[in-house]
Amino acid sequence: MTKQNKKTIILGIDPGIATTGWGVIRTEKNDVKLVNYGCIITSSKTAFSERLNLIHKKLKQIIKKHKPTKAAVEELFFAKNVKTALKVGEARGVILLTAIQTNLMIEEFTPLQVKQALCAYGRAEKAQVQKMVKLRLNLKDIPKPDDAADALAVAICCAQTIPVSLRATVRCAKSE
Amino acid sequence: MTKQNKKTIILGIDPGIATTGWGVIRTEKNDVKLVNYGCIITSSKTAFSERLNLIHKKLKQIIKKHKPTKAAVEELFFAKNVKTALKVGEARGVILLTAIQTNLMIEEFTPLQVKQALCAYGRAEKAQVQKMVKLRLNLKDIPKPDDAADALAVAICCAQTIPVSLRATVRCAKSE
Repeated sequence: MTKQNKKTIILGIDPGIATTGWGVIRTEKNDVKLVNYGCIITSSKTAFSERLNLIHKKLKQIIKKHKPTKAAVEELFFAKNVKTALKVGEARGVILLTAIQTNLMIEEFTPLQVKQALCAYGRAEKAQVQKMVKLRLNLKDIPKPDDAADALAVAICCAQTIPVSLRATVRCAKSE
Repeated sequence: MTKQNKKTIILGIDPGIATTGWGVIRTEKNDVKLVNYGCIITSSKTAFSERLNLIHKKLKQIIKKHKPTKAAVEELFFAKNVKTALKVGEARGVILLTAIQTNLMIEEFTPLQVKQALCAYGRAEKAQVQKMVKLRLNLKDIPKPDDAADALAVAICCAQTIPVSLRATVRCAKSE
């Protein structure tokens, strides 16, 4: 863990329309500690725009409560199909805009980067990543549901990644 | 045109990361009139989150200036590939959230619905749709660039579509 990440509060997010996983960790000396985690769930019976609005509002509440300085968001390059990709993209757009509007620094990580960071192996199985989340956060059990564990994995990946200023791929923005 | 759409100001939007086309029309008796149109352009050299933020801010300015009551957004079910779909989805998510945050009623239309509404033929060519935009708005030339013309086409489609209350597919939401 780098010196720059000392005492940072990081909000990891695994975006989705039906379920957006989130996990908050704080970095402490050379360690990461769990703050909280959960899922934002929206029903398919709700109007689509309202589902996006719900994700935005719930995320704002989480940010207000835990006051992270960074948002670590899972970046996707694949999806089941184009229709799914459009919907996941819409959720991501809302999540990124919410992070911008609440002045969070945004960092995005691909699943490969997350696996590499947690398991030192880019093709690690999902179960292995989740096991590492449990170990790294010193938890009794693997956090459930999976989307929350995935969000915590992204947050841990962010915590142990080289500083923003040295990374060419970082995408950060502050709202006016 | 339905009685309900009388004097409505509609903002049509054709979403994209690089170019988001927009067009504002007002409905007047049994006619549609052009108010304004243009494109929100973001550079690929700009950080991705900042591009989303720019789309949000420019759209907010357009809404503040023209005070539409409805946003008519092009709904996509296809894209070149999954990666493109994710990016277009992100732009759409930002656009929908901006519309929600500014209390616009949102209606979404597929390209097929737009073509059907303007040309009475769901498989009409792009050029035919643009020609109809010129005719319906009584313009000298086809609006340029294409994305702006497409946005105007969505707005016209919205203006002549049956009222919200009678449509099962409408998606509208108001922010708190």
